[in-house]
Amino acid sequence: MSVEETLNPLFKKIQELKPQFIQRLADAVAIKSVSGDETLRPEVVKMGYFLKSELEKLGAYDIQMKDLGIQPPPVDNPKLNLPPVVLSRIGNDPAKKTVLIYGHYDVQPAGIEDGWDTEPFELVVKEDEDKLVGRGSTDDKGPVMGWLNVLQAHKELGLELPVNIITCFEGMEESGSIGLDDLIAQEAETYFKGVDAVCISDNYWLGTKKPVLTYGLRGCNYYQIIINGPGADLHSGIFGGVIHEPMTDLVNVLSKLVDVNGNILIPGVNEMVAKVTPEESKLYDDIDFDVTELNLASGSDTAIYQSKKEILMHRWRFPSLSIHGVEGAFSGAGAKTVIPAKVSGKFSIRTVPDMDSAKLDKLVLDFVNAEFAKLNSKNTIHAELIHDGDYWVSDPFNESFTAASKATELVWGVKPDLTREGGSIPISLTFEKQLKTSVLLLPMGRGNDGAHSINEKVNISNYIEGTKTLGAYLHYFGASQK
Amino acid sequence: MSVEETLNPLFKKIQELKPQFIQRLADAVAIKSVSGDETLRPEVVKMGYFLKSELEKLGAYDIQMKDLGIQPPPVDNPKLNLPPVVLSRIGNDPAKKTVLIYGHYDVQPAGIEDGWDTEPFELVVKEDEDKLVGRGSTDDKGPVMGWLNVLQAHKELGLELPVNIITCFEGMEESGSIGLDDLIAQEAETYFKGVDAVCISDNYWLGTKKPVLTYGLRGCNYYQIIINGPGADLHSGIFGGVIHEPMTDLVNVLSKLVDVNGNILIPGVNEMVAKVTPEESKLYDDIDFDVTELNLASGSDTAIYQSKKEILMHRWRFPSLSIHGVEGAFSGAGAKTVIPAKVSGKFSIRTVPDMDSAKLDKLVLDFVNAEFAKLNSKNTIHAELIHDGDYWVSDPFNESFTAASKATELVWGVKPDLTREGGSIPISLTFEKQLKTSVLLLPMGRGNDGAHSINEKVNISNYIEGTKTLGAYLHYFGASQK
Repeated sequence: MSVEETLNPLFKKIQELKPQFIQRLADAVAIKSVSGDETLRPEVVKMGYFLKSELEKLGAYDIQMKDLGIQPPPVDNPKLNLPPVVLSRIGNDPAKKTVLIYGHYDVQPAGIEDGWDTEPFELVVKEDEDKLVGRGSTDDKGPVMGWLNVLQAHKELGLELPVNIITCFEGMEESGSIGLDDLIAQEAETYFKGVDAVCISDNYWLGTKKPVLTYGLRGCNYYQIIINGPGADLHSGIFGGVIHEPMTDLVNVLSKLVDVNGNILIPGVNEMVAKVTPEESKLYDDIDFDVTELNLASGSDTAIYQSKKEILMHRWRFPSLSIHGVEGAFSGAGAKTVIPAKVSGKFSIRTVPDMDSAKLDKLVLDFVNAEFAKLNSKNTIHAELIHDGDYWVSDPFNESFTAASKATELVWGVKPDLTREGGSIPISLTFEKQLKTSVLLLPMGRGNDGAHSINEKVNISNYIEGTKTLGAYLHYFGASQK
Repeated sequence: MSVEETLNPLFKKIQELKPQFIQRLADAVAIKSVSGDETLRPEVVKMGYFLKSELEKLGAYDIQMKDLGIQPPPVDNPKLNLPPVVLSRIGNDPAKKTVLIYGHYDVQPAGIEDGWDTEPFELVVKEDEDKLVGRGSTDDKGPVMGWLNVLQAHKELGLELPVNIITCFEGMEESGSIGLDDLIAQEAETYFKGVDAVCISDNYWLGTKKPVLTYGLRGCNYYQIIINGPGADLHSGIFGGVIHEPMTDLVNVLSKLVDVNGNILIPGVNEMVAKVTPEESKLYDDIDFDVTELNLASGSDTAIYQSKKEILMHRWRFPSLSIHGVEGAFSGAGAKTVIPAKVSGKFSIRTVPDMDSAKLDKLVLDFVNAEFAKLNSKNTIHAELIHDGDYWVSDPFNESFTAASKATELVWGVKPDLTREGGSIPISLTFEKQLKTSVLLLPMGRGNDGAHSINEKVNISNYIEGTKTLGAYLHYFGASQK
């Protein structure tokens, strides 16, 4: 029987189970598993146990809730436990290949007060707009549920899985995947022994129409500059003009990091970036993208570059620096006449080949400290790396990518574009290094899903067709030479 | 009977009523009358009615809860009502002078998460530290309760008030006293007709040991710079490097406003400031103050100037510019990789003679717009004045100041320093202009009370002796020539 003949009933079953699959995603979204908010840590843990329970029902065994210990500083609660990594197996046939599927069950912060149209932690089903709206719908609960959906469809059909599966679902991806590198290293020759490919579904199509496979990612080094002044917040009438104000120092230093066109101003950073070769430049020619897609996705006309190649290169293979915000200053509505006593400016740099992460940290922190020193302020500074994740680039023509390409074409009727990504999934690199195998990024959602933003959604069609694609990938990969 | 003979039993009664007076302040602090938070507007209104009820009990009549109408933009709720101004009379003897007492019953925002040691809206009585801790304890619920305490002490003693009193208690002082200017103009010849002096108790001693009377205030013009970019918050991995980021633009513009030593960099602003004359300079020689007091009050060693004269001049008679914070950016703990779509930078300028408020607005907004234009960003800017209040300077040797000086010396055993203030009470100027009378600032609290900050307090001794001072002021002023 050909792979396509096997997939036909599987796709029908997936279609038939659509209401159950949407309910599964709704149940997952309802759990506020925000890893960046310490007060919500119990919800993150709850989400891990939700997965455990689903996996048990779907026939997984040897389920291990891996304890990663105490979260290292900076934390408010010095005894805060990291959420567990959910390891499990489905199938253990030595004649079959083994695929490790990775996903994360934590999400970015979200509150209706951020401007969401609906409660972020209630999945809203908009059949007429083909949308499922809610925090984590696309990043990354949708894809993780997609894998569970594939298991359920096989189970209900009584269809044998074409590969052995190992799950690795973590709860700290949005906060730097703390502890996961160590776990992977530790399990490389034990739980993860014999893995033939790693498949990660945690990114997006480039645009909104054409599916993609992704073979490269930028890294991300996230920093904060803490400036400490008075002992407590002060009244600006009484103290304005007579003390050094932390916010003045901070905006001064932040303004030195990047120019308005996104050029990083920290000396030495751009020099580390690999030069564009003519061969690389040619790879961009066929990709389906233009500035209109970028403007649609950003909901604005604020593009720095107009040409496809410039846009994609600056998203994929050049570094960028974003200033995310300030902790400790007045951030509410209205007019508070406060001099904030301690402010923390947050920014991150997206990294690319051949930047060295440790060298970058030194360049950044030395520069920040030197710029602050120039100010001659009596306030004090502490600049630090909060977390980092390296960039990653793979071979897009290996067996795993080929299987994913066939699966995508079967489901969507079009060959996927081969893309890189601006975002970071640092764990890709770790899997590749530690398991000495290849990693594939097989996205489910679209470029306008609004991951990390308000009104995050996944299209219903992407959720369902994406589930089919994940299933088909397993079958094509299982059918290829062991 | 001399004024001092009259005051003797009054002071005793005030001492005796201390527990009731502290309870009154606790009841007031428990009402979260934050005028800057629209969601708490019902609490502000509740606080106005608390005062009405107290005034009724203490013999006030003709109580009018003046409706100031709808709050003008910028507001979230376009139908938000302003809180009422509480007007009332105690006494109406044409042979007596009439004193208008002004205070405000709204407070600055506060939350335990800001770093308070205790719940900000629960008054904590620390007898051993001589402190009453809570939001509004010193700014301005303590002084407003002080006036009520004076009324109660007279009532319980059966002692006749030496003057007629008119109260004017507003609920929008921390948000620019919206609507009060118009009300004062409107009532100048009606409710407020015949006022001989206005007494405002809404500022602080310069230091912590010596009482003061205050004859000058800086004004405050509060601005926001709104920069609008993408249609929603975006993922910095996907959009970093390819769109113009509002935060980059904002820190750039904010960094152009003021240098680290507090020098305002907006051309034309410093040129409007009155020159220091030798006579004025001499006035600072005798004031009890040094940099140690400033460092104690700021809880740090971040003073820009070391000499008493430079510090006080920069607090009182030179302008300053403080950057208060950013609305719309990431402001929480942790590491959120967001590109905020719309950010609003808040800053204010403390104004002094002879700055023209309208001219200042034009200089500031033109400069901000010009600096933004230089950036050539595709984001859009809207800079605006949120509210303003003019500076004020009075004659510190008139009858009202003389009465207050005697009262202070009787209670505290020392002649008060004559000071100015860095903070603004713009309504001082309005009263003076509209009622064609003199305004006196008679502070209750100390320089380290932490108004607008965490752990705001008033000393128990200041609350009680301050109540005596307010009462004694009325008697000395009432005894002076009508």
